[in-house]
Amino acid sequence: MSGQAPRPGPDEERAAPALPRAPGDGLREVDAEARALARRLLEGARHGALAVLEAGSGHPAASRVALALDADGVPLILTSTLAAHTVALLTEPRCSLLLGEPGAGDPLAHPRLTLFGRACRLERDSPEGRRARALYLQAHPKAALYADFADFAFWRIEPQRASLNGGFGRAWALTAADLAPG
Amino acid sequence: MSGQAPRPGPDEERAAPALPRAPGDGLREVDAEARALARRLLEGARHGALAVLEAGSGHPAASRVALALDADGVPLILTSTLAAHTVALLTEPRCSLLLGEPGAGDPLAHPRLTLFGRACRLERDSPEGRRARALYLQAHPKAALYADFADFAFWRIEPQRASLNGGFGRAWALTAADLAPG
Repeated sequence: MSGQAPRPGPDEERAAPALPRAPGDGLREVDAEARALARRLLEGARHGALAVLEAGSGHPAASRVALALDADGVPLILTSTLAAHTVALLTEPRCSLLLGEPGAGDPLAHPRLTLFGRACRLERDSPEGRRARALYLQAHPKAALYADFADFAFWRIEPQRASLNGGFGRAWALTAADLAPG
Repeated sequence: MSGQAPRPGPDEERAAPALPRAPGDGLREVDAEARALARRLLEGARHGALAVLEAGSGHPAASRVALALDADGVPLILTSTLAAHTVALLTEPRCSLLLGEPGAGDPLAHPRLTLFGRACRLERDSPEGRRARALYLQAHPKAALYADFADFAFWRIEPQRASLNGGFGRAWALTAADLAPG
């Protein structure tokens, strides 16, 4: 293999124009299709990648969380104060949640949704806390083994906006209202 | 019968579940098994969740990236300056990368690895840039359609430390050296 950066050959030159330039290259107008895709990703998500600011360092940190949806469609998580992401959220509630699982083939060809929002901790014995517990355990029954431990709590990840990527070249910027159940 | 140990009552049984307390409840000593699991997650990852600090707002932001490994085992990504995560990394190179895909069942029972590090942009025509291109396109051949566009560049996500979670109650804090190919 030559050490030189290869120039695109005729085939690649022909192929390139067919491919949209990049995921972020121009946002599409938000329409019913985009809202439906975002809701589908939200409703289908059993887990996601949570991005927080690590307590102390302020370093971005990504971790896996299991997910359920609250009655109004807002994502719910259940975390322990022993977990670093919980310590982070107690310090800085701003967070982001990536949803949508890639299937086979190119991982960037599959749709995904990034929520930008704030984590709101629910009091265990409040109506909101009890509702969250019921809905979460409906989605994740085995979490009943630890949901009631004193160091665990439910949180709502309240979206303020979102970035939807439907695959190469199909990107939308969504508002919180766009994410609400139709 | 005499001499029998008292059996726990129903309440005690509920209070002492067989499940470990929490993912972050005590870190295990890093051993060969942990290093091998981390390497397996790294080597098996075709995509990951990248956490960055959004440019301007400083809001944590999670997004999907396709991954390959550089010759020394460091993750490589290919991004466009038209994508928000690239703009973020150009402003603040600190980032985090979550690897490992959940299979069926409880999403928190499957192992995952969070890298904490810095993104380092590779010059297209440097030896490092050409090597990254070759290795990345080996893993993602279709990316040849856009890898040479002027707004795209390869980045190394250079880990400084990592958090490994092998499933409930199995957590390790790894150094960069722990992640190096054995």
